[in-house]
Amino acid sequence: MNTFGTLFRLTTFGESHGAAIGGVVDGCPAGIELNIDFIQNELDRRRPGQSRLTTARKEGDRVEILSGVMDNITTGQPIGFIVRNENQHSGDYDDLRDVFRPSHADFTYYIKYGIRDHRGGGRSSARETISRVVGGAIAKLCLRQLGIDVKAWTQQVGDIACERDWTRLDLSLTEQNDVRCPDPAVAQQMADLILKVKGEGDTIGGIIAGVITGCPVGLGEPAFGKLHAQLGAAMLSINAVKGFEYGEGFAGVTQRGSQQNDRQTPWPPEELPADNTEEPHAPTSYLPNGKGYRWKSNHSGGIQGGISNGQPIPFRVAFKPVATLLRPQETIDLQGHAVTIHPRGRHDPCVLPRAVPIVEAMAAMVVLDAILINKTTHL
Amino acid sequence: MNTFGTLFRLTTFGESHGAAIGGVVDGCPAGIELNIDFIQNELDRRRPGQSRLTTARKEGDRVEILSGVMDNITTGQPIGFIVRNENQHSGDYDDLRDVFRPSHADFTYYIKYGIRDHRGGGRSSARETISRVVGGAIAKLCLRQLGIDVKAWTQQVGDIACERDWTRLDLSLTEQNDVRCPDPAVAQQMADLILKVKGEGDTIGGIIAGVITGCPVGLGEPAFGKLHAQLGAAMLSINAVKGFEYGEGFAGVTQRGSQQNDRQTPWPPEELPADNTEEPHAPTSYLPNGKGYRWKSNHSGGIQGGISNGQPIPFRVAFKPVATLLRPQETIDLQGHAVTIHPRGRHDPCVLPRAVPIVEAMAAMVVLDAILINKTTHL
Amino acid sequence: MNTFGTLFRLTTFGESHGAAIGGVVDGCPAGIELNIDFIQNELDRRRPGQSRLTTARKEGDRVEILSGVMDNITTGQPIGFIVRNENQHSGDYDDLRDVFRPSHADFTYYIKYGIRDHRGGGRSSARETISRVVGGAIAKLCLRQLGIDVKAWTQQVGDIACERDWTRLDLSLTEQNDVRCPDPAVAQQMADLILKVKGEGDTIGGIIAGVITGCPVGLGEPAFGKLHAQLGAAMLSINAVKGFEYGEGFAGVTQRGSQQNDRQTPWPPEELPADNTEEPHAPTSYLPNGKGYRWKSNHSGGIQGGISNGQPIPFRVAFKPVATLLRPQETIDLQGHAVTIHPRGRHDPCVLPRAVPIVEAMAAMVVLDAILINKTTHL
Amino acid sequence: MNTFGTLFRLTTFGESHGAAIGGVVDGCPAGIELNIDFIQNELDRRRPGQSRLTTARKEGDRVEILSGVMDNITTGQPIGFIVRNENQHSGDYDDLRDVFRPSHADFTYYIKYGIRDHRGGGRSSARETISRVVGGAIAKLCLRQLGIDVKAWTQQVGDIACERDWTRLDLSLTEQNDVRCPDPAVAQQMADLILKVKGEGDTIGGIIAGVITGCPVGLGEPAFGKLHAQLGAAMLSINAVKGFEYGEGFAGVTQRGSQQNDRQTPWPPEELPADNTEEPHAPTSYLPNGKGYRWKSNHSGGIQGGISNGQPIPFRVAFKPVATLLRPQETIDLQGHAVTIHPRGRHDPCVLPRAVPIVEAMAAMVVLDAILINKTTHL
Repeated sequence: MNTFGTLFRLTTFGESHGAAIGGVVDGCPAGIELNIDFIQNELDRRRPGQSRLTTARKEGDRVEILSGVMDNITTGQPIGFIVRNENQHSGDYDDLRDVFRPSHADFTYYIKYGIRDHRGGGRSSARETISRVVGGAIAKLCLRQLGIDVKAWTQQVGDIACERDWTRLDLSLTEQNDVRCPDPAVAQQMADLILKVKGEGDTIGGIIAGVITGCPVGLGEPAFGKLHAQLGAAMLSINAVKGFEYGEGFAGVTQRGSQQNDRQTPWPPEELPADNTEEPHAPTSYLPNGKGYRWKSNHSGGIQGGISNGQPIPFRVAFKPVATLLRPQETIDLQGHAVTIHPRGRHDPCVLPRAVPIVEAMAAMVVLDAILINKTTHL
Repeated sequence: MNTFGTLFRLTTFGESHGAAIGGVVDGCPAGIELNIDFIQNELDRRRPGQSRLTTARKEGDRVEILSGVMDNITTGQPIGFIVRNENQHSGDYDDLRDVFRPSHADFTYYIKYGIRDHRGGGRSSARETISRVVGGAIAKLCLRQLGIDVKAWTQQVGDIACERDWTRLDLSLTEQNDVRCPDPAVAQQMADLILKVKGEGDTIGGIIAGVITGCPVGLGEPAFGKLHAQLGAAMLSINAVKGFEYGEGFAGVTQRGSQQNDRQTPWPPEELPADNTEEPHAPTSYLPNGKGYRWKSNHSGGIQGGISNGQPIPFRVAFKPVATLLRPQETIDLQGHAVTIHPRGRHDPCVLPRAVPIVEAMAAMVVLDAILINKTTHL
Repeated sequence: MNTFGTLFRLTTFGESHGAAIGGVVDGCPAGIELNIDFIQNELDRRRPGQSRLTTARKEGDRVEILSGVMDNITTGQPIGFIVRNENQHSGDYDDLRDVFRPSHADFTYYIKYGIRDHRGGGRSSARETISRVVGGAIAKLCLRQLGIDVKAWTQQVGDIACERDWTRLDLSLTEQNDVRCPDPAVAQQMADLILKVKGEGDTIGGIIAGVITGCPVGLGEPAFGKLHAQLGAAMLSINAVKGFEYGEGFAGVTQRGSQQNDRQTPWPPEELPADNTEEPHAPTSYLPNGKGYRWKSNHSGGIQGGISNGQPIPFRVAFKPVATLLRPQETIDLQGHAVTIHPRGRHDPCVLPRAVPIVEAMAAMVVLDAILINKTTHL
Repeated sequence: MNTFGTLFRLTTFGESHGAAIGGVVDGCPAGIELNIDFIQNELDRRRPGQSRLTTARKEGDRVEILSGVMDNITTGQPIGFIVRNENQHSGDYDDLRDVFRPSHADFTYYIKYGIRDHRGGGRSSARETISRVVGGAIAKLCLRQLGIDVKAWTQQVGDIACERDWTRLDLSLTEQNDVRCPDPAVAQQMADLILKVKGEGDTIGGIIAGVITGCPVGLGEPAFGKLHAQLGAAMLSINAVKGFEYGEGFAGVTQRGSQQNDRQTPWPPEELPADNTEEPHAPTSYLPNGKGYRWKSNHSGGIQGGISNGQPIPFRVAFKPVATLLRPQETIDLQGHAVTIHPRGRHDPCVLPRAVPIVEAMAAMVVLDAILINKTTHL
């Protein structure tokens, strides 16, 4: 179950302190220019040690592409890649060999497999997401050619939230601060909170928001393969994620159908619209017969019946606070005795800044996969 | 993409106004007694026309099992089943043949496939979930043998919420009212709201909560197959669902790691516990060596690193208000002209009461699938 | 594992003496006219009781399509179908409830599942192939639109073989005799042999040959999904099949590379060909730049590197003699005691005549699936 | 489609002249000792340059395991591995950049993907099978613990055949000669033929036989997942394979059912057997109730109804002669012009000696996968 996707498939391997993290991208269309600098840049966005807000652990995380390209063009063959692990202080973990760290996967892995790699969490480490970012970067390079864009940002840290939604934000500002929040003032508050929490040896959660733009109508499958179901599964498979919503999400449950229904209107208007309450906010799209229309709202979040309707797809992902604390914690060891652990590893007080590219990567792979599947709807 | 699951697999077919809804359950373990009354009873829980809160459309929805059993015992062979469609007022839909109903799948299906079954939404109709309930009922019969239980209930309708969580509710009361809320007083308020909304020709959303109890440690797979990712995908694939969360979910993002970490403590205690702030709330479990332990909290929601830890798994699912309104709506037709639709079909003002068994069904299939996969962890 | 295919997927269910045989075709392209007469006709070709060479068991085997079509056009939604079982002499099997018939699946099913449907072989009955023929008929309707044709015929029964290969046969004659051999003289010999064997209460095996014509270049995937690997798996999954070969097959192993290499030559010729030993036998094809070429031979069987090269794909499938004899046989019962069985069911002395449409059906589904997958090679 | 298997899954990548060949083994049970020397030894069996019968190309083909083990024990996590390509004479292929070598995948890849790696055949090179041997070696280490063994050998080269079947051969002699034929005298003849063919700049095909012993009853799935269908697909996916048969295979089609039926007899005998014509040849097995039985023959090849019956599983695989000749050949180039190629690469005159471990590897993975799936037959 280390493979993600149906036609565009990412298979991953690797533990925190093994020789390497890596994977195989299978089903990538042929003829795509594989810009290695772009891929490396995406990895750099999730790299530890990139700012004072993240873990001090420094790893170069250089990706090596091993196959599937010829003169930088994809050949349609599987793309193997690895990122060597470096800077491993495995010794830091010696005293964790026999204990279950609270709220980590130590206990569940041990019982499930009868054996676990205690060093840095082994496979349960967030280093596993390196492979996702590589796969997602390749997907993004494909999506670019189709004019599809995936953007994510830190929308909330603890109780500091950026209240404006994506239509009122300049998402090009996201990368301009360490927190990856496109509202500079809110970003500053978030950074202050993270540093405060870090100073207390504690951790904090938050919400990453994202939006997919440029999707054609028709992505996603009716029953179990609804586009948002695939998107949700993708997000929920990221470490520390506890919730996913799209469109109006949980907040929308208090509304009436009459408030939430999205409707189309001919464009240009056929007559003076009787209903002036909602201005069409979307650009003009066209039916197969060439007739124009506009959406008057997007409460549905760009998906109806599980299938993209051509409007932007906004979503939100909840991250719990990191389980690794820089303070003593009581727990039990493998024999069931009470022990107190004194962690010495290097960890993030808040995963959100580094998780932004991971969220984008997962979304990009979902959309590209849906595009490939949708090519088979007709003979 | 009409197949759900990896080893326990449900493949479904059928439209609202076709000849029949049905499916195939493949991978059901051999030797399970297939209690047909139980399966039919589950179907009756989602049946239309069961109360004044649901659509007036009445269908018997009798399931016929076509294969895979011998003297009521599963043989390990695929279980085919059908539910004939009856009481179809296809004529009700004639004037919808050429229009896109707002926030329905009419538009997306039409553009994706170039053809659509306009009668009752075709494949996008909630009648598709009949097959899920049958598959889920079969899964439940398997889970019963393992002492695993899945319970769901209506937790919120519009802004009427049942604030108590499952640990403080008597879930045996869920089926005692039309709303399927185990708090009778809140249920009454919900019912009143639904009837009020119905009277206005409008619809309303809500939240269904669920809890899975009795899971062994070890269900779920580390990377993309995390138990909650599978659970989330399952829920998000149900019509009208806009969000999924488990454990502390979205609300938990404001908390610190020190507040959310779940830890185990030896049981009986080895000494007087220094930390009295949290009483162990869970029953005693045992390590492979026989030593007892208790969990002091369950913020994680029974899953750590994507794998069940033996604690209950609580989750919540957000449903938007139904798109079909009993009032005129403006939209466009297939040619892009403005039209006003006057729906005459029979529809639910609120899907939640009937969606409760669907949520349970999907959860049951996810858990059973995870159990089967987990059997292959060791040789 | 009752699902076949990757994008065009057939899921089947049903036992010999259950209520119905059926299945779901998922991933069928939208917009295909589903000619029900054609599907029924394909079923009639495999129907028991169609001639003196087959079992006397008579079943109408009428297919009912339950979903996925609108005005006879596929909607892109799953196509559910059933064929009711009739004319069941279940009583015929009462004395087989506790015995393992030699070379049947009785023993292996019993040990694997701990329970088996002894009536007519249950799921191991060749009635399971009804669903394959329906799925294959739908695939054929799709392939027709692309000019792709799949034809099979009885090439050998016992030691009576039709020595001519497909290039020297008039395949339109296949359906003109009960054996389904396009050489009328050989067909007569085969029929005589089958009747002789039948008279002895015995059974006989044979070989079905097939050829796929009209494939574009590019079907099949390089590594594990080679077109002939998929074709072989499809054929080997049919009851009683013991071998598969394509191109020169087993006989070709004695040849040299210099004898078997297939090469292309410009067409029209650029100069007088130096090598006159082999005349180009194939029609002219064209490279992307419009330049013509011809193949000088087809030893490869239309597939190179696992991918179709545009030439016809000939293959052969070996069927063992049916295990059910109309004579007493010694065996053991479920308790391990020696018993003698006296079969009374109605069975085919030779499966080949009725297996011809099954072979075609499986090949058609493989090719259509490969076509859909190949649509995703480029963005 | 570069993933093989359902639960024990091998995903591979790599081209002949890329940076590395590699793969990911997912679903390997936890707790298996991963003997790296054994894995390397399997690779050495397929390594080029190992004898005068194979290509002169020398590559160390050292495998590096990157993940999934802790102290040499599998952890249940995916096992990533790579084998660096060395000794690449890519220059050898410069003049092949623009031509389609006869009977290679050059043409089909070029048309399918619009781009191809012309160096050494790229992905279509037999170097791809390195990953299969690694995956197979890991599967073998698992099977060993269950007493299951997979053995293959060169049974025929050109028209030199080893007529004795496995029951009359000492398979421990297979590795004692370069050809990998357990009959030393025949091996000598085969070697002579291969050298003769090599001297002529030509190539030759042959047949590899194999046998799987020690399988429990119950492996394989009834319909499409029949054990021999999976085995056949596995073999047919190996480069140059043109046919697969098991049990009596193609030769058996001339026989009667009364000759081929395999039956069980109580053991020890309950009375003097009336039928003395066939001595039980198999060891005593036992029913669930403890009663002994023996098989009187094994025409079925150890599989009935697609499911293993506990008897050995013999099979045969046909390999065509290698397409690369050491003599000039006429063909066309990418523009469709006639050209003559003068190959200079280093190639095998006969693939069979080096293909023996590949056949074993594929069989081992199929059997292990079937074992894991079979663990889920019961709850």
